[in-house]
Amino acid sequence: TQAFDYNEHPHRRFNPLLGEWVLVSPHRAKRPWQGQKESAVVEDRPKHDPNCYLCAGNTRSNGVQNPDYKDVYVFDNDFPSLLTLDVETPIDENPLFQLKPEKGINRVICFSPRHDLTIPEMEVEAIEKVVDAWKEQYLDLGSRDFIKHVQIFENKGAVMGCSNPHPHGQIWSQSSLPTLVEKTQNNLKAYYQKNGTSLLADYLQEELKRKDRVVIENDHFAVVVPFWAIWPFEVLIISKRHFGNISQMTAEERKAFAAILKGITVRYDNLFETSFPYSSGMHQTPTDGEEHPEWHFHMHFYPPLLRSSTVKKFMVGYEMMAEAQRDISPEKSAQMLRDLSEVHYKKG
Amino acid sequence: TQAFDYNEHPHRRFNPLLGEWVLVSPHRAKRPWQGQKESAVVEDRPKHDPNCYLCAGNTRSNGVQNPDYKDVYVFDNDFPSLLTLDVETPIDENPLFQLKPEKGINRVICFSPRHDLTIPEMEVEAIEKVVDAWKEQYLDLGSRDFIKHVQIFENKGAVMGCSNPHPHGQIWSQSSLPTLVEKTQNNLKAYYQKNGTSLLADYLQEELKRKDRVVIENDHFAVVVPFWAIWPFEVLIISKRHFGNISQMTAEERKAFAAILKGITVRYDNLFETSFPYSSGMHQTPTDGEEHPEWHFHMHFYPPLLRSSTVKKFMVGYEMMAEAQRDISPEKSAQMLRDLSEVHYKKG
Ligand SMILES: O=P(O)(O)O[C@H]1O[C@H](CO)[C@@H](O)[C@H](O)[C@H]1O
Ligand SMILES: O=P(O)(O)O[C@H]1O[C@H](CO)[C@@H](O)[C@H](O)[C@H]1O
Repeated sequence: TQAFDYNEHPHRRFNPLLGEWVLVSPHRAKRPWQGQKESAVVEDRPKHDPNCYLCAGNTRSNGVQNPDYKDVYVFDNDFPSLLTLDVETPIDENPLFQLKPEKGINRVICFSPRHDLTIPEMEVEAIEKVVDAWKEQYLDLGSRDFIKHVQIFENKGAVMGCSNPHPHGQIWSQSSLPTLVEKTQNNLKAYYQKNGTSLLADYLQEELKRKDRVVIENDHFAVVVPFWAIWPFEVLIISKRHFGNISQMTAEERKAFAAILKGITVRYDNLFETSFPYSSGMHQTPTDGEEHPEWHFHMHFYPPLLRSSTVKKFMVGYEMMAEAQRDISPEKSAQMLRDLSEVHYKKG
Repeated sequence: TQAFDYNEHPHRRFNPLLGEWVLVSPHRAKRPWQGQKESAVVEDRPKHDPNCYLCAGNTRSNGVQNPDYKDVYVFDNDFPSLLTLDVETPIDENPLFQLKPEKGINRVICFSPRHDLTIPEMEVEAIEKVVDAWKEQYLDLGSRDFIKHVQIFENKGAVMGCSNPHPHGQIWSQSSLPTLVEKTQNNLKAYYQKNGTSLLADYLQEELKRKDRVVIENDHFAVVVPFWAIWPFEVLIISKRHFGNISQMTAEERKAFAAILKGITVRYDNLFETSFPYSSGMHQTPTDGEEHPEWHFHMHFYPPLLRSSTVKKFMVGYEMMAEAQRDISPEKSAQMLRDLSEVHYKKG
């Protein structure tokens, strides 16, 4: 029996937010890769693209003209996944065929009129405007009776299904708590009921002590590669103060949040000197009108790249049938990210 | 309030195997796609490729020479995610940092010496040899004390992270029940304890009555697009008889299983007249030595393509943060697959 080395030995770790195990095979990062490569990102984009349906002043496919916006611009998604229509619930007595109509509102948020920028290349002051808009959207959508949950997220990069490189995110708000949010809520609640404290506050306190998975921090937020991360360079932004949602941030916290968003995404871009793709999204209090002391504001980043700007991790086969699996230890990933410059490589 | 139409109205459906909801946005299939396209599959492959590490007689990167095999060939994975090494379990008192070493054996199974074939292009007799080998592997690996679960799966196509087009699958066997298998087992068990019957037997019986999600069937197996499918053309092969694993199939059932595998994969290839990518995998009784009357043999197919041979569904953003989401109704997908020829397009 050998002593355990978490950069050498296969093991499983437990994700307390989802209540699931994850397989870690750190020794496997050494295998050669002969599979599919992604195409490199085209870096040369104009400041304004006359063919982009998100650029200021351009006309979208439904004939609506975008205003000549100067910072952030939010509009209802032209191809929403959810509608505000009222429909009858069909009746099926068989419990194996459960179906419920779902209502909701989907929006698009342009982060900047500049077609050639992304969050890591924007000024912190410009990112603050995005944070303010997210707060307004959370409040506006969340205030409606039929909206119980507001999911704010961004798909960045073609490899993440993003069909337009113009910097933008999405907001899908709906009448039910989505599966992964409900699971997270159940786990946060069980912990809160047992310990009387926030799971993520306790977790963050311990990570700041242990240090090996911390990437960056400022006065109000920290970025860690979670102990249970599944994506090679997955990170979690956690607020240092225990509050439930973006509308509860102080003005100073909103500024610090904008700064940490820039901090982590600049390091992402620097890792492989490419516009680093990811899906990111906030998890926060549902807008169901109930008290939720168990919720603690956090934001996930799930980036697909593994070894270079063109080689990603495939979550397929074993991962789809059995369990999420990673090939590099979270500690090693955190160290790689931590060691990078805070200055964007294009400005270096 | 309108009457409900499941090809028009957004709704959620419940997956009783995983205990999770899925968002269905059928009206959204109409949106235009300007995003990433996959490269078309190269169809012209030699029968034997001297540079393929899976072809008969060739030498692999670790110096081992493949035998001159004539049908199926199984060997230990040269880059396994799991090892048979015994390591100490590190001690951490904090419940937010749970970690356990994991043991296991990973194998590769070549389905045929022919580099240019895939399951849909193989003869049923040749697929029967694959089924027999899967059965032997399940028994061989499952008989070891430290192996509690044997995951048999296939990643087909570069878009599914498959690094070699030579027809092959994988087997990852390990000491623990993987997350998704454990979840499935819990749900099957709860149903069995409540009703005294197999969830999947009851489900299949009802699907065969309703017919709208059935793709094909033979005497011993049926293929349905499950009511709760998340991938556009996801299907489930379910055995008509209630048994737990591949070693319990009769000789006739093994033949029927090979035939249905060919039947569904030929229709897959015919859908977009391309070698249709997917991850597939069996779910069956764990090899933990316990009785498992709740288990019912089934096999999942998760194919990524949505509209054509180059446009896939991206499970990103909302799906990663909130809930799986699909853009076409399972009923419509089943109908499209059902209407296809049983003769492979290359032979048509
Ligand atoms: O083992 P392979 O074929 O090299 O690798 C492929 O399948 C594995 C199991 O599904 C995945 O973990 C890898 O991400 C994928 O690229
Ligand atoms: O809404 P978009 O950007 O067209 O679409 C993208 O994001 C959605 C939400 O994550 C996904 O459902 C789509 O598969 C993806 O292509």
